[in-house]
Amino acid sequence: MSDQNPVFIPGPTNIPDRIRKACDMPTMDHRSADFRDILLPALEGVKQVYKMETGETVIFPSSGTGGWEAAITNTLSGGDQVLASNYGMFSQKWIDMCARHGLDVQVIEQTWGDGLPLAAYQEALAADADHQIKAVLVTHNETATGVRSDVAAVRRALDDAAHPALLFVDGVSSIGSMDFRMDEWGVDIAISGSQKGFMLTAGLAIVGISQKALAAMENARLTRFYFDFRDMLGGYPNAGYPYTPPVGLLNGLKTSTGMLLDEGLENVFARHHRMAEGVRAAVRAWGLQNCANSEDIYSDTVTAIVVPEGIDGNALVSHAATKYGVAFGAGLGKVAGKVFRIGHLGSLTDAMALSGLATAEMAMVDFGIRVTLGAGVAAAQDYYRTTA
Amino acid sequence: MSDQNPVFIPGPTNIPDRIRKACDMPTMDHRSADFRDILLPALEGVKQVYKMETGETVIFPSSGTGGWEAAITNTLSGGDQVLASNYGMFSQKWIDMCARHGLDVQVIEQTWGDGLPLAAYQEALAADADHQIKAVLVTHNETATGVRSDVAAVRRALDDAAHPALLFVDGVSSIGSMDFRMDEWGVDIAISGSQKGFMLTAGLAIVGISQKALAAMENARLTRFYFDFRDMLGGYPNAGYPYTPPVGLLNGLKTSTGMLLDEGLENVFARHHRMAEGVRAAVRAWGLQNCANSEDIYSDTVTAIVVPEGIDGNALVSHAATKYGVAFGAGLGKVAGKVFRIGHLGSLTDAMALSGLATAEMAMVDFGIRVTLGAGVAAAQDYYRTTA
Amino acid sequence: MSDQNPVFIPGPTNIPDRIRKACDMPTMDHRSADFRDILLPALEGVKQVYKMETGETVIFPSSGTGGWEAAITNTLSGGDQVLASNYGMFSQKWIDMCARHGLDVQVIEQTWGDGLPLAAYQEALAADADHQIKAVLVTHNETATGVRSDVAAVRRALDDAAHPALLFVDGVSSIGSMDFRMDEWGVDIAISGSQKGFMLTAGLAIVGISQKALAAMENARLTRFYFDFRDMLGGYPNAGYPYTPPVGLLNGLKTSTGMLLDEGLENVFARHHRMAEGVRAAVRAWGLQNCANSEDIYSDTVTAIVVPEGIDGNALVSHAATKYGVAFGAGLGKVAGKVFRIGHLGSLTDAMALSGLATAEMAMVDFGIRVTLGAGVAAAQDYYRTTA
Amino acid sequence: MSDQNPVFIPGPTNIPDRIRKACDMPTMDHRSADFRDILLPALEGVKQVYKMETGETVIFPSSGTGGWEAAITNTLSGGDQVLASNYGMFSQKWIDMCARHGLDVQVIEQTWGDGLPLAAYQEALAADADHQIKAVLVTHNETATGVRSDVAAVRRALDDAAHPALLFVDGVSSIGSMDFRMDEWGVDIAISGSQKGFMLTAGLAIVGISQKALAAMENARLTRFYFDFRDMLGGYPNAGYPYTPPVGLLNGLKTSTGMLLDEGLENVFARHHRMAEGVRAAVRAWGLQNCANSEDIYSDTVTAIVVPEGIDGNALVSHAATKYGVAFGAGLGKVAGKVFRIGHLGSLTDAMALSGLATAEMAMVDFGIRVTLGAGVAAAQDYYRTTA
Repeated sequence: MSDQNPVFIPGPTNIPDRIRKACDMPTMDHRSADFRDILLPALEGVKQVYKMETGETVIFPSSGTGGWEAAITNTLSGGDQVLASNYGMFSQKWIDMCARHGLDVQVIEQTWGDGLPLAAYQEALAADADHQIKAVLVTHNETATGVRSDVAAVRRALDDAAHPALLFVDGVSSIGSMDFRMDEWGVDIAISGSQKGFMLTAGLAIVGISQKALAAMENARLTRFYFDFRDMLGGYPNAGYPYTPPVGLLNGLKTSTGMLLDEGLENVFARHHRMAEGVRAAVRAWGLQNCANSEDIYSDTVTAIVVPEGIDGNALVSHAATKYGVAFGAGLGKVAGKVFRIGHLGSLTDAMALSGLATAEMAMVDFGIRVTLGAGVAAAQDYYRTTA
Repeated sequence: MSDQNPVFIPGPTNIPDRIRKACDMPTMDHRSADFRDILLPALEGVKQVYKMETGETVIFPSSGTGGWEAAITNTLSGGDQVLASNYGMFSQKWIDMCARHGLDVQVIEQTWGDGLPLAAYQEALAADADHQIKAVLVTHNETATGVRSDVAAVRRALDDAAHPALLFVDGVSSIGSMDFRMDEWGVDIAISGSQKGFMLTAGLAIVGISQKALAAMENARLTRFYFDFRDMLGGYPNAGYPYTPPVGLLNGLKTSTGMLLDEGLENVFARHHRMAEGVRAAVRAWGLQNCANSEDIYSDTVTAIVVPEGIDGNALVSHAATKYGVAFGAGLGKVAGKVFRIGHLGSLTDAMALSGLATAEMAMVDFGIRVTLGAGVAAAQDYYRTTA
Repeated sequence: MSDQNPVFIPGPTNIPDRIRKACDMPTMDHRSADFRDILLPALEGVKQVYKMETGETVIFPSSGTGGWEAAITNTLSGGDQVLASNYGMFSQKWIDMCARHGLDVQVIEQTWGDGLPLAAYQEALAADADHQIKAVLVTHNETATGVRSDVAAVRRALDDAAHPALLFVDGVSSIGSMDFRMDEWGVDIAISGSQKGFMLTAGLAIVGISQKALAAMENARLTRFYFDFRDMLGGYPNAGYPYTPPVGLLNGLKTSTGMLLDEGLENVFARHHRMAEGVRAAVRAWGLQNCANSEDIYSDTVTAIVVPEGIDGNALVSHAATKYGVAFGAGLGKVAGKVFRIGHLGSLTDAMALSGLATAEMAMVDFGIRVTLGAGVAAAQDYYRTTA
Repeated sequence: MSDQNPVFIPGPTNIPDRIRKACDMPTMDHRSADFRDILLPALEGVKQVYKMETGETVIFPSSGTGGWEAAITNTLSGGDQVLASNYGMFSQKWIDMCARHGLDVQVIEQTWGDGLPLAAYQEALAADADHQIKAVLVTHNETATGVRSDVAAVRRALDDAAHPALLFVDGVSSIGSMDFRMDEWGVDIAISGSQKGFMLTAGLAIVGISQKALAAMENARLTRFYFDFRDMLGGYPNAGYPYTPPVGLLNGLKTSTGMLLDEGLENVFARHHRMAEGVRAAVRAWGLQNCANSEDIYSDTVTAIVVPEGIDGNALVSHAATKYGVAFGAGLGKVAGKVFRIGHLGSLTDAMALSGLATAEMAMVDFGIRVTLGAGVAAAQDYYRTTA
């Protein structure tokens, strides 16, 4: 693996030099006034990226998984009903977590590669007349399949059913890269991680919390301590943390939110869409299928590509790493071996994207997949060239 | 605050350039073979620093607090009895966490500044004939008061009472700086964090687990997911993580354990002791009291110094930060305002230590404390000069 | 210009992370013993890369141009005859420098793109019966045209004529990337710079000096001070410098020579040849001409590509920089506008090279050059894939 | 030597983290438009630091010594008379350089530790009725002895004698730290280096040139090429360099001049004066002599301290490096062994300065010098505390 090549895993993403430097700090006293100048802009930047004007944001030193745990343990009680669908590795893992916390998860099974089963959600909500469902879970971007969900539609489903359940969204691989609207979509808790659209290393779970979710916190009886919102919020008057925070990573978050906001969120989303379109043009030129099975659910941050029958996608990924030093995403869970994934989120240039496509082509030809060298690259070049 | 000055907080510590560079990595695929070459040496290095030959180590992306939570949730069940003493901020917080997880904590209150109440532990263990106490908690180094505990004595108390309770040790501000012997002392779970003796930024909870604790895991019924040992251990056969790990920080841990082991642990401990002795010589020269109230419990990583009546220790700390750009540790909890703390752990030279003492003197004189400029420095110089 | 893209100028080259970190040092006293551990390995490493066992190496804080000046001012006197050929920008500049120092330069004019005019060298040396020619100049790799010279053949010409002239070689864009043999080829002074095969930033002129050149130093009467070999060599017994050296850059040189030697020089050369072959395959697939007009003189570090009539090569380079953020080399001097150059020296991967070729294709199509998108990439892919 | 300790050599100075990061750049094409945004602000920043509104600045990739060579070779001709005084290592070396370039140097010998011999300069200028003296050399700050010269007084001497000679000033260890006024003092060429007040690594000679010196350039007949002002100035219309520039170092210079100007030059000078006063208070408290023999010539960037008879100052410096890992300046030339030097220029805090003084005390006591531990520190603390 060469560290001079860009990575094409769907996070952690390539880190711009400026952000690496923001993270690489001499030690600062996290109880000093200087830390305030890092934490407060980071929190404010996150709010703007989440498009939220009310509610709170908290940032845990943990991976994004910790954000999931925070969401449920701060708002729910043992035995509470939760509505969710299993349509990829990450939605499945969140369901597993709920179960292990003693929640009663109503799972809608869905073919991986399909989108969020909206009708089934509508049905379940309509059927739940006495409001046993306390929370509805949505994975905004299924990183395993490259499928995007329509969060606003789930909000409308809740509203149509006049259902009071909380709406929780896993935005780990979407927020900061694809359009997300906390307030407008009535999201109650949204979770992301530092290592995706925020272009940092892993280490921060970033959580947006609505006023409604903050209120729910009072009656929640699931156990929590490390991930307790109350301890985090309690530190804010002194710009403090309930335990030692990773100062450099927070300084990186201040920097990266600043970069995203300076560029303009809509420009950031358009940039990701353009990158993704180039990759999808290549996939079509290769004659291969996108794991996401319709255009309206294509993710702009990751594309899972179905490998031909008889080919092991994960072996392909290993091969590209070993022979060419380039990292692609392996298939996970139910689609392990059946797909390989190209992450195209975070800071990426046309030249970088083309290098990934060119490498993927070589690896596929090495494996006997019938794609023409240069064909996908040419399709992406044509798209990038005319849209730059 | 100048980032050119060393910090004298009791962690995060000053980071050697070599370690900063080890952490500051281009993005690496954490599912690649290359990550194995980071994770496995880091885990092995931790084992050696912990002086453990059996059992397992796990490293969570979290602050040290997450390690506390992991310890109890992986081994205990609701209502289990835990024996602990409140003799400083960190022992108190761990007690609080146990209570919030529904454990039945038998708390031995102790004056802050006193050492661990060994006799009371012995008594409680002897009295617990039917072994209701499932775990005994010890804070190896109370960072709030600069008090060191005799973990081996607690082990002897357990053995003397033939008590099967698990022995949990918070070694956050001791391990890697002061002698710690996981196996020899029969510690079942020991917790440290990346930002102390390991000289990294905050972000990793480092946990050593004995075979006995691993066995206890099977019957533990407290809820956990993010901090579940089983998911972590389950990833090891593939050198993997159950969620996205902070690769750079783990690479830093590989580097820092390598540095500690190359220096030799006994040399590392002697170095810390020497640094501490210089600081204590200065305190005596100032005519001030150590918060730790007897020599045999003096910590080699942090010294809490009692400020004279009428002086606000925390204001003194703020003043030193504002006027001289030097960070000392404020008093916490019951000793807030009554002490200020000088952290002397991690990578520190004589010259760095003397700069801290010289600055502390100026700040104290500014506050009207009757110390002679240069007096503490001279006492430390004399000690350092003759022991170098 | 995006700093995330590799550069394709023929130096400075892309800097591996490890080398950036070696250069980025805290301040070290250059008169301390520690500096010895940097300087001596750097000097020794250079010797091995130059394939020299006798003679000396000196490293000036300057660009490579300073090395040219050092070569002539340390060995020649005003009015001395020098034999040289103008076959590219850099050979021409060196001639200009000689003239400005009052040397009598016998210039063999050659078409740019042609190789070193060996027959004319042979003729001039044979004709110089009374050995008025004191030095013969060769540019090992003409960076402007991508032309490699046969240094060994010039040595043979000297030997055949039993001519005692010194042989000076500009190896700035060859040494460390293409085979160079100081001793075997009887080179008397060879010059390179930090920013090419050594993968550092500009700032060091690296000079190899034969015993014969050291002897010539005694009678040389051209004025010099900053570039005086004697002052540099005089510092060596104390591992010192006659003035303040750039310590970090020298530490980088210690690191980079270590990396080259660990890889094995023959492997390094083979790697560069392979990279170059891929680029040349692309040029052929584009139907374009290499500025170097025969295969035997193709450079393995840079390829100058002739743009079609009516196209301004320098405008093309600006366009690629502005639109795609990718830097190629502009045409210089007589071939300004007529070529654009792809540097492929230093640390480069297949994926990086392909990203450059893909970008060049887009830029050419933007300019109306009749190349097929993906065609050059495919040719290079095919070559890289089958030779990896 | 520990790289965690500040250095107390009189340059290279301690490098602030922000400047290290500015220098540590990915490769940028130095012929691109982006380089303009580095070079032009750096040149403009230098002009403001030099307090010059007319004339030009050029920045050579070389040590400061290259700046000396540039000054004389660009303006003088063989046999030209130059007036200079030898009152320290650096003035002596410049004289040596002039002689080696065939200039006729009229040397006024002066005791090292004394200031510039103004009366002798006045006399020589008055005596030179036919203006044979073409240039007058002044070392603004003699780094070897810690002596500051009154440049304005030399200007007045020239004016009083109505003498047209050029005035050249070596400001390597003064500019950016002590007041310097190019225009007001009528300086024709002023030289500094990157590694002193500009807080960078060595590698740049920074030269200010008056209109009068630019005019003199036309008739100068000394040979030059690498250090030819004309080639440098010729590149400016395209923001270019005649050879490959060290881009990162120039970016550092842009950053450091920005930092100095943001702080305000008068504040920068006052800060250096304050640091120096603290050090001098320590020297008095030690009962030792300053090598500079009167207060009005004390340097604010370096203090040379006379060691007692029988002590080898250079051994003392080695000892401090070996035992304490702290670098002080050794004595040079005529005062080698007789002094040790404390550099206090560039970015330095009170705490850093005190650590140097405390270490010097320990080293001196180790050597049997009769100073009281803590005495110098206390004197400096008292001064710093009351002037902060």
